Amino acid sequence: MPRENKLRNTGCPIAFALDTFGDRWSLVIIRDMLIKGFQTYGEFLEGDENISTNILADRLQELEALGIISKQRDPDNGRRVLYRLTEKGADLAPIMLEIICWSRKYDGNTKVQDRIVERIEKDRHGFAAELKKRALDTDK
Amino acid sequence: MPRENKLRNTGCPIAFALDTFGDRWSLVIIRDMLIKGFQTYGEFLEGDENISTNILADRLQELEALGIISKQRDPDNGRRVLYRLTEKGADLAPIMLEIICWSRKYDGNTKVQDRIVERIEKDRHGFAAELKKRALDTDK
Repeated sequence: MPRENKLRNTGCPIAFALDTFGDRWSLVIIRDMLIKGFQTYGEFLEGDENISTNILADRLQELEALGIISKQRDPDNGRRVLYRLTEKGADLAPIMLEIICWSRKYDGNTKVQDRIVERIEKDRHGFAAELKKRALDTDK
Repeated sequence: MPRENKLRNTGCPIAFALDTFGDRWSLVIIRDMLIKGFQTYGEFLEGDENISTNILADRLQELEALGIISKQRDPDNGRRVLYRLTEKGADLAPIMLEIICWSRKYDGNTKVQDRIVERIEKDRHGFAAELKKRALDTDK
């Protein structure tokens, strides 16, 4: 499951974190679940970054193995699988928001929706808590 | 300079951020500058993670090219080079602290000094600001 150059079990928090979500595609998937509310394979596939089917399938499997997401049958459509963030995955919200702020400051090319920026600037802790709550809300 | 699988210039803040510091060694170097105050090649080399000389030299060069660190002669020892975080690099402090919190919560193996944890729990914004200020303080 782990990819190249893993540092797992060194006791270093940076290594542990990057082993979990340091892959850019993994983080894009987590962002899309957290901020855009994506839940299905089709939604990820049609996202802005044009992820390929093989990378998507690989990363979803890896994120599930790492306990970041869980998989369940859609109660309204038994043939469809829904992906949900676990608490461990939803707890990545504050990291995600800090990354968005930093990239927006230093990359003129970065596109972030105004409503997201406003929420972060106004109250990033509250916004992170709201994203986490929404991600874990099983009634949505 | 960029390594495998870069997504640069897609406008995605996650991609931009991971292209800059998503490599685990780069982030370990930034952490050691930010939190431990490391400034010299020798200090990095003797750090806890046993970075190899070729990886260290490569990452320092890359971080300089990306504007995260700058290099200068030590005024007290003209033969020694000092590495300093730029503002762009020091602004990674909040991301770093959120990563430390998350890893500590979800990795039983993660080692973080108690004094760091206490500061983060008490006032993470203030602590991030202090780390940034210290990193940019040219008098240290």
